[in-house]
Amino acid sequence: MQKKADGQNYAPKGKVASVCSWGEFKVGIVGLDHGHIYGMCNGLQEAGAMMTMVWDPDPAKIAAFTAKFPGVKAAEDEAEILGDPSISLVAAAPVPCDRGALGLRVMDAGKDYFCDKPPLTTRADVGLARQGVARTGRKFAVYYSERLHVEASVFAEKLIAEGAIGKVIQVVGSGPHRISLPTRPAWFFDRRKYGGILVDLGCHQIEQILFFSGAGSAEITASRVHSYKYSQFPDFEDFGDASLVMDNGASGYFSVHWFTPDGLGAWGDGRTFIQGTEGYLELRKYIDVAADPEGDHVILVNHEGEYHHRVAGTCGFPFFGRLVRDCLDRTSTAFDQGLVFRAIELAIEAEEGALARGQGKMTP
Amino acid sequence: MQKKADGQNYAPKGKVASVCSWGEFKVGIVGLDHGHIYGMCNGLQEAGAMMTMVWDPDPAKIAAFTAKFPGVKAAEDEAEILGDPSISLVAAAPVPCDRGALGLRVMDAGKDYFCDKPPLTTRADVGLARQGVARTGRKFAVYYSERLHVEASVFAEKLIAEGAIGKVIQVVGSGPHRISLPTRPAWFFDRRKYGGILVDLGCHQIEQILFFSGAGSAEITASRVHSYKYSQFPDFEDFGDASLVMDNGASGYFSVHWFTPDGLGAWGDGRTFIQGTEGYLELRKYIDVAADPEGDHVILVNHEGEYHHRVAGTCGFPFFGRLVRDCLDRTSTAFDQGLVFRAIELAIEAEEGALARGQGKMTP
Repeated sequence: MQKKADGQNYAPKGKVASVCSWGEFKVGIVGLDHGHIYGMCNGLQEAGAMMTMVWDPDPAKIAAFTAKFPGVKAAEDEAEILGDPSISLVAAAPVPCDRGALGLRVMDAGKDYFCDKPPLTTRADVGLARQGVARTGRKFAVYYSERLHVEASVFAEKLIAEGAIGKVIQVVGSGPHRISLPTRPAWFFDRRKYGGILVDLGCHQIEQILFFSGAGSAEITASRVHSYKYSQFPDFEDFGDASLVMDNGASGYFSVHWFTPDGLGAWGDGRTFIQGTEGYLELRKYIDVAADPEGDHVILVNHEGEYHHRVAGTCGFPFFGRLVRDCLDRTSTAFDQGLVFRAIELAIEAEEGALARGQGKMTP
Repeated sequence: MQKKADGQNYAPKGKVASVCSWGEFKVGIVGLDHGHIYGMCNGLQEAGAMMTMVWDPDPAKIAAFTAKFPGVKAAEDEAEILGDPSISLVAAAPVPCDRGALGLRVMDAGKDYFCDKPPLTTRADVGLARQGVARTGRKFAVYYSERLHVEASVFAEKLIAEGAIGKVIQVVGSGPHRISLPTRPAWFFDRRKYGGILVDLGCHQIEQILFFSGAGSAEITASRVHSYKYSQFPDFEDFGDASLVMDNGASGYFSVHWFTPDGLGAWGDGRTFIQGTEGYLELRKYIDVAADPEGDHVILVNHEGEYHHRVAGTCGFPFFGRLVRDCLDRTSTAFDQGLVFRAIELAIEAEEGALARGQGKMTP
């Protein structure tokens, strides 16, 4: 079972299933501000990628990284990685507001880019990132880990594709997180840097809602951010939610917050409910609360019965192998570039709309 | 365990706990169009009320009722019940659009009124009902059964009052129902008669969201109705959802629909998630899907741990005894008259807003 008291350091490990020969696909790492970089590199390495060089302005972060990935060289600076022709992909988790500009530098250096979420924090960044992909022909992949690095989600994708619940008409997601205040860096509380809760945590949810409903886009019909408890941080939002209508007619809603209580055996009781015309799925991603500390539970109810699938260890994480092959073969099997950008664009739109309507209009 | 393949005929039975002497509190029954009337009368009878006279235009419905409640007299007409000075309360479940006018007649006859949900289907009806209560000093109680007749909800109310999860900041409800098409009367498919899905099923949800969040009112920030599957009935909506912001700052969302698959061992996997600043509750009301066919599960997570409470048979349904005593003593312990009306008014507002924005704007 994965260690998961704290979401920021959750770095799932799966089965090693190399999709290339050793040394064929080299990865440079730039920006270690978020612990997600470990999950990203675990996934790539299990798919056969070789981590070769790492850079961050903070030597302590580099030392921590190279302790977990021995043999990875500490670069002199970012330019050394971008200038190394042997590196195909740059994996990155700097402070959120810096991820877009780094992506442009990476793609302009002729490399593919694999970025932690949220990949971008402003509409302008989204426009530039789209232009960068068009200009360079490079990939801008995003670690939407709550779908890509969760076996329950991988299993759900299969069930939906098999028609197990008919046509998807609604997706409801909840993304509670533990705040773990003492461990958070300053940028965590600065909206200009993390983008706001509907960007930081909401983009995960919107990506899942779009993906599971099979939609290409959506309209945000309502969104809200609020600070219920942590008002000592004026630019921090501890709650957000939004309603959506997909472009294919499906309905969506999600909420995200930082109120996971200390007694839960995971950083958050993340759920996804996927309703179809002929049945429904419930994903209990990180824990089956008060029943099983192990995650990756998928409940399926259809016209035949009720089924509880425990899928931990059964599906793996096919995203990473597909990403490596996509980069090598110039194919698009791991992700849809349009959807990756649209998800974060909608998250930014939801956040901006919520702020415009007034965060603190109604105070408890 | 209650029979619960079909929500319309779900009539919970609890413990008998008389709050008055036998014959002290007499009830007349008018309108048997919805099977909820059986749950309403069960609850009243368990609290010590005596069912004395029943009327409905359909003799078959009267025969079915008197078979279940022997000793209840079939009235000649509604007037016989309204004119009987021994009757204190009229319990009623006619077609939804007729419930408001009946309530006025009942209250003007000097009796209290206890009505199935949705109690009212238009804004005008709500205004008239409010005026009726003010004019007569009578009670207009509503059978919001998804809270009042569910032990999981009764238990949750206690936990919240004890501070088990801190201050409530969000309530999310889902109210899926089995459509059971062959059993449905014509009015079930006629929006002018049932009020639309956000009225018919949504009022339950809004009442719970207001109640559990401790709010007096709310703003509907988004609402939607749609017909995903049963388009052969042009005035029938098979899906609805809405987002709300409470007047005390809490957030709310609910969805309701008619897509419970045949394989579920209950008419619907109704859930309520109540998030507090210091913990959360999940109510699995009618079933613990794929785990326990019995309902009334309450999951509590707080800073100390995760707890699964199986509360079926432990709480009873205090609403009914309180209602009987309120009618006898002219107190207000069972329900808040303002909240009862505000819940249905918000449901009507959500439905009207959804229709105005266009039900079929995006068709799958």
